[in-house]
Amino acid sequence: MLPLSHHDITEAVKRTDGALVRTPVIESADLNARFSGAGAPGARVLLKCENLQHTGSFKYRGAMSACLALSKKERERGVATHSSGNHGRALATVALSLGIPCTVVVPSNASSTKVAAIRAGGATVVESGPTLEERENTLADVVSRTSMTVVPPYNHPRIMAGQGTCAVEFLEQTQELGSTLDTLITPIGGGGLLSGIATWMHHRSPSTMLLGSEPELAGDAALSFHTQTLQPQMPPITIADGLRTGVGPLPFEVIQAYVHDIFTTPEDAIIQCMKMVWETARILIEPSCAVPIAALLAGKQSDGTPVNLSRFAGQTIGVVITGGNVDLDHLPWEVRTP
Amino acid sequence: MLPLSHHDITEAVKRTDGALVRTPVIESADLNARFSGAGAPGARVLLKCENLQHTGSFKYRGAMSACLALSKKERERGVATHSSGNHGRALATVALSLGIPCTVVVPSNASSTKVAAIRAGGATVVESGPTLEERENTLADVVSRTSMTVVPPYNHPRIMAGQGTCAVEFLEQTQELGSTLDTLITPIGGGGLLSGIATWMHHRSPSTMLLGSEPELAGDAALSFHTQTLQPQMPPITIADGLRTGVGPLPFEVIQAYVHDIFTTPEDAIIQCMKMVWETARILIEPSCAVPIAALLAGKQSDGTPVNLSRFAGQTIGVVITGGNVDLDHLPWEVRTP
Repeated sequence: MLPLSHHDITEAVKRTDGALVRTPVIESADLNARFSGAGAPGARVLLKCENLQHTGSFKYRGAMSACLALSKKERERGVATHSSGNHGRALATVALSLGIPCTVVVPSNASSTKVAAIRAGGATVVESGPTLEERENTLADVVSRTSMTVVPPYNHPRIMAGQGTCAVEFLEQTQELGSTLDTLITPIGGGGLLSGIATWMHHRSPSTMLLGSEPELAGDAALSFHTQTLQPQMPPITIADGLRTGVGPLPFEVIQAYVHDIFTTPEDAIIQCMKMVWETARILIEPSCAVPIAALLAGKQSDGTPVNLSRFAGQTIGVVITGGNVDLDHLPWEVRTP
Repeated sequence: MLPLSHHDITEAVKRTDGALVRTPVIESADLNARFSGAGAPGARVLLKCENLQHTGSFKYRGAMSACLALSKKERERGVATHSSGNHGRALATVALSLGIPCTVVVPSNASSTKVAAIRAGGATVVESGPTLEERENTLADVVSRTSMTVVPPYNHPRIMAGQGTCAVEFLEQTQELGSTLDTLITPIGGGGLLSGIATWMHHRSPSTMLLGSEPELAGDAALSFHTQTLQPQMPPITIADGLRTGVGPLPFEVIQAYVHDIFTTPEDAIIQCMKMVWETARILIEPSCAVPIAALLAGKQSDGTPVNLSRFAGQTIGVVITGGNVDLDHLPWEVRTP
């Protein structure tokens, strides 16, 4: 039996009612034109804008879903987690709004903007080394001292269910637009989002092709998918700082069951597509969210062969824009000041 | 009698049905927090995202409204205009979509990104000097040679009516959110948007306080409002390139009748607020759209006294985000590349 069912997502939708932003789905004619020009004429790209979620990322969904399921005693003791940024920021803000004490273990390679936002949310910040093992060890220390409940970033059914609420909205909104999703592609880091979304889509829109995407430099999920064996995290060096972690075992079970493939993208395509989405869709997206777009335009399938964009011609392609927390003083392209 | 009535806007809504993006209204808790911190506790800022309109600005509304009202013969002869950027881009794209020939007169100080987009839309580009007089003279030359119909950027009832469709949506969407607008503030350049919006709001939401805002360096509208006499354009040097033109006489009549005040903002506040909105609301806005936010936080009233932000405490404030066409290779703050 899989660790997540669509009933869990229905429960998460009920639990979080009124506490989440129903983020807009937007479409850019200019972005569609780029897809047409690159070999997929007639493709429509619908962007589910989780960068416009509270705290600027989808992570708020999972954190709220998990915290609202805690008992009174657990809330009093507080919550703790490890996070490269967006999950910690989301949990800190959710905890503040619910009056729950919160500690966040932050790896030394996390984006400074994101760490500052975690502190601004009122959480206690503890630094660890960058690997998953170091993060988990530091978190275990915190928990043994405080009896706080761990709200993990992805490897937990309530987190996966919370992220799945994004798919419930996306599907409703696509129907409101009079359309259906031929393909749905998300970034994959730990797999919480993709597993939640895949569970709901498999239940409600089984004809939609479900794809994950990640940087080549953090290609553990594609390798795990291809070899059908969970692979270790790679060195955390990709610019897509939200996708540096390895896939969690619980999400991986779901992904193996429902997801069609996981694409990988080179770093230069991530940067180019980040800038291209800013220009054409006029929204701020962090590098992680450029990965699905870059995967379609310049990526490889999990078997190593190039993605053939022309197979998406005429399709409606859903892309989850996972976050918009960017350090505007540091951008990955040359900028001149007038 | 005023040059625009709410009936004209109702007609523009009907005429443009299905041809416009119903742009989302978004709210950012982080942006609201900045307003609370600056002295307006409990203020909610609702952003009507015309940066997500076709061609990245509200100008598409007016251009579509005007072109759809042309006769068959007028369409065959084509359309022409002068524009610092967004109106030209919108008209070029509308004309292309309707199969109408198009020429755009562009002042020599227009943003190069915007001019490139006008060319990409398939229009013929003719350069003129930067003043309104020089733009109009060059346009008159074009028209005398070609018999094209002039679609002016703002000083025409059909343009003003088209821009007013934005208010129709904004009011509906605010009601869908269970709220009402205590204040509505827009940028003002030529006045097409503000006059269209004010006409509709006066009719449908008379209790909403209507405000315009412009850079101090292009403060002709505030001066005109204060002196009740149309003042000439100022030297076009503000960073807010969409607001460099003078107010048109037709919009000015409407603005005098319905608008409560016009605020002015210093250049440094425009740049700071542009970056702040990118960070807190995660959308790309051009400098012109930062002007209303900067006006509330650091502006002056048309009588020269400072704006008192505390009077907006607890209010729901609507802000029209007019455009998102930014040259990402040139930004008005220091950016480092990793």
